[in-house]
Amino acid sequence: MTSKAQSRESEMDNVVKQSRSNALGIVHKPSMRTSSSSSLDRWLVNKMLMAVGAPPISVVLWDGTELTNTQAPVSVLTINDRQALIALLMDPEYNFGDLYSVGRVDVQGNFTEFLETVYLAIQKCASKSSWHRLMAWRHHPRTNSLRGSRGNVTHHYDLSNDFYKRWLDSEAMQYTCAYFPRRDMTLEQAQIAKLHHVCRKLQLKPGDTVVEAGCGWGGLARFMAKHYGVKVRAFNISHEQVVFARSKALEQGLADQVEYVEDDYRNIQGQYDVFVSVGMLEHVGAPHFRSLGDVIARTLKDDGRGLIHSIGRNSPGLMNSWIEKRIFPGAYPPSLREMMDIFEPHDLSVLDVENLRLHYSKTLEHWLQRFEDCSAEIRVQFDEAFVRAWRLYLAGSIAAFNTGELQLFQVVFNRALSNDIPWSRSHLYQ
Amino acid sequence: MTSKAQSRESEMDNVVKQSRSNALGIVHKPSMRTSSSSSLDRWLVNKMLMAVGAPPISVVLWDGTELTNTQAPVSVLTINDRQALIALLMDPEYNFGDLYSVGRVDVQGNFTEFLETVYLAIQKCASKSSWHRLMAWRHHPRTNSLRGSRGNVTHHYDLSNDFYKRWLDSEAMQYTCAYFPRRDMTLEQAQIAKLHHVCRKLQLKPGDTVVEAGCGWGGLARFMAKHYGVKVRAFNISHEQVVFARSKALEQGLADQVEYVEDDYRNIQGQYDVFVSVGMLEHVGAPHFRSLGDVIARTLKDDGRGLIHSIGRNSPGLMNSWIEKRIFPGAYPPSLREMMDIFEPHDLSVLDVENLRLHYSKTLEHWLQRFEDCSAEIRVQFDEAFVRAWRLYLAGSIAAFNTGELQLFQVVFNRALSNDIPWSRSHLYQ
Repeated sequence: MTSKAQSRESEMDNVVKQSRSNALGIVHKPSMRTSSSSSLDRWLVNKMLMAVGAPPISVVLWDGTELTNTQAPVSVLTINDRQALIALLMDPEYNFGDLYSVGRVDVQGNFTEFLETVYLAIQKCASKSSWHRLMAWRHHPRTNSLRGSRGNVTHHYDLSNDFYKRWLDSEAMQYTCAYFPRRDMTLEQAQIAKLHHVCRKLQLKPGDTVVEAGCGWGGLARFMAKHYGVKVRAFNISHEQVVFARSKALEQGLADQVEYVEDDYRNIQGQYDVFVSVGMLEHVGAPHFRSLGDVIARTLKDDGRGLIHSIGRNSPGLMNSWIEKRIFPGAYPPSLREMMDIFEPHDLSVLDVENLRLHYSKTLEHWLQRFEDCSAEIRVQFDEAFVRAWRLYLAGSIAAFNTGELQLFQVVFNRALSNDIPWSRSHLYQ
Repeated sequence: MTSKAQSRESEMDNVVKQSRSNALGIVHKPSMRTSSSSSLDRWLVNKMLMAVGAPPISVVLWDGTELTNTQAPVSVLTINDRQALIALLMDPEYNFGDLYSVGRVDVQGNFTEFLETVYLAIQKCASKSSWHRLMAWRHHPRTNSLRGSRGNVTHHYDLSNDFYKRWLDSEAMQYTCAYFPRRDMTLEQAQIAKLHHVCRKLQLKPGDTVVEAGCGWGGLARFMAKHYGVKVRAFNISHEQVVFARSKALEQGLADQVEYVEDDYRNIQGQYDVFVSVGMLEHVGAPHFRSLGDVIARTLKDDGRGLIHSIGRNSPGLMNSWIEKRIFPGAYPPSLREMMDIFEPHDLSVLDVENLRLHYSKTLEHWLQRFEDCSAEIRVQFDEAFVRAWRLYLAGSIAAFNTGELQLFQVVFNRALSNDIPWSRSHLYQ
């Protein structure tokens, strides 16, 4: 073993020891001190690389052996024990996440670039069709029934408000795609621009009544009330978020205009001028889109307008299985075709669809930078595996939006019989 | 019989006599001089009105008897013989067109308003589900196979260039939805605005190669070449249109930049920076959307952009059966879900969808006005039944767009892996 490889191994051992019982619940069998790599191991590495479309990377094994299929590897993947190699070969998409989190595999070079390189290779490789379908079947997302949704949402959004405050924008605490009409905007400016963009698309007028499904920490609801003079009822099943949102509304003197309801979107009652949902649909699940459509059809006034903002895909497919398991239980980013299950049964007219995927990539770059800037504090609050898992989640999401694996759709709609439609979209750009 | 009714009947008889052998091929059994209306007839009128959702209109029968279910009827439908009443009861959507064309039924009052009133009533009536489906099954649209498409297109577009010149815009001869950034624009201005809107959405650069599927009289292709410096190959299977388009390109000195190909979109070869199709998809038919997607996937360069502009619907359903039979054989306006058959199988990203249905209504108002202004000449060129049929088609289309029965979708797309995406849509509004 080379001394370089020895020092890498002891570093990783530290991570592994720290993370034996970790915040994300990754059950981790400690790596055995494995023998030198054999020709069989090298054959397995080759098989693994072929299974993900032979990305131009190099692989360094636990004994320092370096393998590559390219002259100029984009980055270096280190695999620190034989069991990790076998796990990667079995199910790279899922197992990479856990192995990376506990430090049994690592990446040298730009992490996001490494992930983009692998995503591109997977997209281009023909094996995706059969092998990936098998994996997708194994990793079916968790259900979003009334009870299931609560558990799924608690897993992610109730982590702790302090955690999210560290790296989300300080103004509106938006945990959804920002809008950068100018690329050099700060995250704070871009989130405010997003809120205005949504409000303009909805043609808000003072006195309008708005219902919001899935309101996060309530930033959009308060923004609408304050800047557009509307009354908002905002629904959310995350207890931590609702408590935070209510106290903010009180603090800002908006409590008579904004009501936060700790309940599921399926229980929305009443009639409203506007229906809005930003970043909830990803957590609804395609089998429940018709129920969501029923809620909209029941609650939207005849001349009402609506907007749904969601991560999506070009064609139906599952969320990255590791993210669905460790980060976002129940998450499912739909294709536009699937989203039509909301609108078609109720003769709702789709007026405008905007794809903002590169804006989400830029948003995530800001988040990742802020996350790294305070990773020491986050490591203290949780542990090293948590930090590594979230780094992977954020960087992996950048890669997914940059490579077209994920899209971001903003869909504006109204009822077929209403001609209360903006004559053009120029009012969004004034 | 009242004298008012007598004079109406003799007017109608004239129309009927003129139109016995007519340009649209409506086989017309002359109406018998029918006896006075009976209580059975009045019962039948009531049944017919109920079947279309009881619109607030009044009905005048052949003997002058007036029947209404409302205090303030929007307009008056006259039914000039008993067989016409029975035909309306059997299949109002289809038979109204033929009966109106030959003058066996007529409308007093604003014709478009009458049609909107009936469309709204039909949309709201519950019977739509069972009864309308039965009718839809009877009127399945004609096939758009390679051979079928030629016949269907010839029926409509080869009527005569002179006919379309009379009432389309004089500048670009656009037989598709115009774009009115200002409502008071002339038709000519709005069609030019549409052409610029399409070109901006496609981010045309000088030297780009463009393929156009279904180019009409070639106006968009020449406009792109002249104003954006691109090279265009434009496909169309209407012989009359291609001949016209070629002579215009020669006349305008654009023959080296624009090539018109008299062939089907399925035979497009080569690789292009841009794919565009304005107003062809309605004639493709949903079963052929995958073929169209194959053509796009085969011909679009890796960083290429595309736009499809089409009449559509909120949910799958057939074109008005009479229009499909008499005016547009093979026409089928798809829902957005159905359109996804073009994009999803090839991982094409939908970047922007704009619904311009009220712009189509306004375009049609201009067309109808111009059509009426030269109806005397059109009557000489064809016959009275042709004039009445086209009046119904144009007015019925206004009603369909105004009542949300039809939509107009402009969809911009590119390949999933291309990040050559405009950062925002503000460039469309500068």
